[in-house]
Amino acid sequence: MSSVRDKANRRISSLKSLLCVGLDSDPDKIPELFSAYANPVLEFNRAIIRATSDVAVAYKINTAFYEARGIAGLQDMENTLGSIPDAIMTIADAKRADIGNTSRKYARAFFEHWPFDAVTVAPYMGFDSLEPFFSYEEKLVFVLCLTSNEGSADFEEKLMQDGTPLYRSVLGKVASWSRNANAGVVVGATKSSQLGEIRREAPGLFFLIPGVGAQGGSLEEAVDLGVDADRQSALINVSRALIYPEVSGSGLFLSIDDYELAVAEEAKKIYDGMRRVL
Amino acid sequence: MSSVRDKANRRISSLKSLLCVGLDSDPDKIPELFSAYANPVLEFNRAIIRATSDVAVAYKINTAFYEARGIAGLQDMENTLGSIPDAIMTIADAKRADIGNTSRKYARAFFEHWPFDAVTVAPYMGFDSLEPFFSYEEKLVFVLCLTSNEGSADFEEKLMQDGTPLYRSVLGKVASWSRNANAGVVVGATKSSQLGEIRREAPGLFFLIPGVGAQGGSLEEAVDLGVDADRQSALINVSRALIYPEVSGSGLFLSIDDYELAVAEEAKKIYDGMRRVL
Repeated sequence: MSSVRDKANRRISSLKSLLCVGLDSDPDKIPELFSAYANPVLEFNRAIIRATSDVAVAYKINTAFYEARGIAGLQDMENTLGSIPDAIMTIADAKRADIGNTSRKYARAFFEHWPFDAVTVAPYMGFDSLEPFFSYEEKLVFVLCLTSNEGSADFEEKLMQDGTPLYRSVLGKVASWSRNANAGVVVGATKSSQLGEIRREAPGLFFLIPGVGAQGGSLEEAVDLGVDADRQSALINVSRALIYPEVSGSGLFLSIDDYELAVAEEAKKIYDGMRRVL
Repeated sequence: MSSVRDKANRRISSLKSLLCVGLDSDPDKIPELFSAYANPVLEFNRAIIRATSDVAVAYKINTAFYEARGIAGLQDMENTLGSIPDAIMTIADAKRADIGNTSRKYARAFFEHWPFDAVTVAPYMGFDSLEPFFSYEEKLVFVLCLTSNEGSADFEEKLMQDGTPLYRSVLGKVASWSRNANAGVVVGATKSSQLGEIRREAPGLFFLIPGVGAQGGSLEEAVDLGVDADRQSALINVSRALIYPEVSGSGLFLSIDDYELAVAEEAKKIYDGMRRVL
């Protein structure tokens, strides 16, 4: 049984929140305010965490944004991970997978060396590429299923010989490979017509739902269609629309406190939307 | 036009070699000999490079083996990359891909911050997840097509509605997306019956062929079926079978020089096998 899943579900129920905050922190987009610090990205992340930790169920760290700056970026990733309160789930959005002996190394990277609670993985190479992740029974493993981007039409939505799309085949396999209730799937909020159908098909999986906000998916639909029968086991990720709030008035945030207030306000709006539907 | 492709093909033709050395360097498998150094993995990699650079066309760094040790591991990766002679192609075996704005960051990580010549990517999320890599016209991008592991049966070999397997659909798309001759595919040597068919289908793509050696694929078949009409545009990767040679006699290598000799001998055997067929 996955203790991470329990931790997340306890927090979902007590807060009535599905909020996953995506720390896609981009040095090119971080306000000038943070540049006075030796590690602007880390200070930015800590501000976002302070501003959202009362309503967040999870933080999702997108590894690409840290790898793009090499070792300095990964040092920020490591320190950010250490700044997240224990009660809140941490997700390495890494989309890794390779042959078994290599996936074992990736699992060690994101479950042991960097002790994330959960990781995202890509299904193309099949069972033995995912099994090393699933073998961490207490963790959560989110397999890409139906993503929010245009390219999902290229393969994910292509029909197989039995007339169902590839993502349904991935969904079925993931459900059958999930012995320890530690499996999940990534389903984009932009695909609301399929989201409900996928949830009915896989009542026992944990759902990670990106695509609300900058990518255009509806929050209320995502909440309502994504949760399981207990109104749990789903996270809705918001990244850009939350961590880079629009400034009102002067066009510049005057202090980090101001910035945190704007982020907290945005988080509160999203949270209220979730609470209404939950 | 991809200058990396030209560089690789020049070396393939002049050496009559397709050898790609896989630096899947695992601290648990590296001989005791190297433990006297502050960075055993880096010293090990430098020994492998010294022992093989006369016959190697490419070095492939499997990012998982470095990420598993966090920042210290990635420092070794960075220093290893800097130790590879300019004439030899470098591949980040990273199997990344995500929505476009994230893939742009991964491309920056492996093409700019760490200046690899080539990268491996996963196709599941479709065109916009791969385009940011393809946009580096001078580089090479290897898309997973038909891999060498058992799990390839789970999705890659599953039949689509038109009766052809998913990997054929990936192959067709990659060929059509490849405007700058900078695209390639990963095809496992364990799938020799399909390798020839895939090559006929995609005469213009560059092939990265793992699975010879520890995974059991035949070297001669892989060479013969993998090359293009000019007997170029293919690399055959060997990792474990080459970098961890069997010791003869006493059961221990007595010096790093001894170890290099054993690796060089193994590389020479593989090289001779390739030359015979090329």
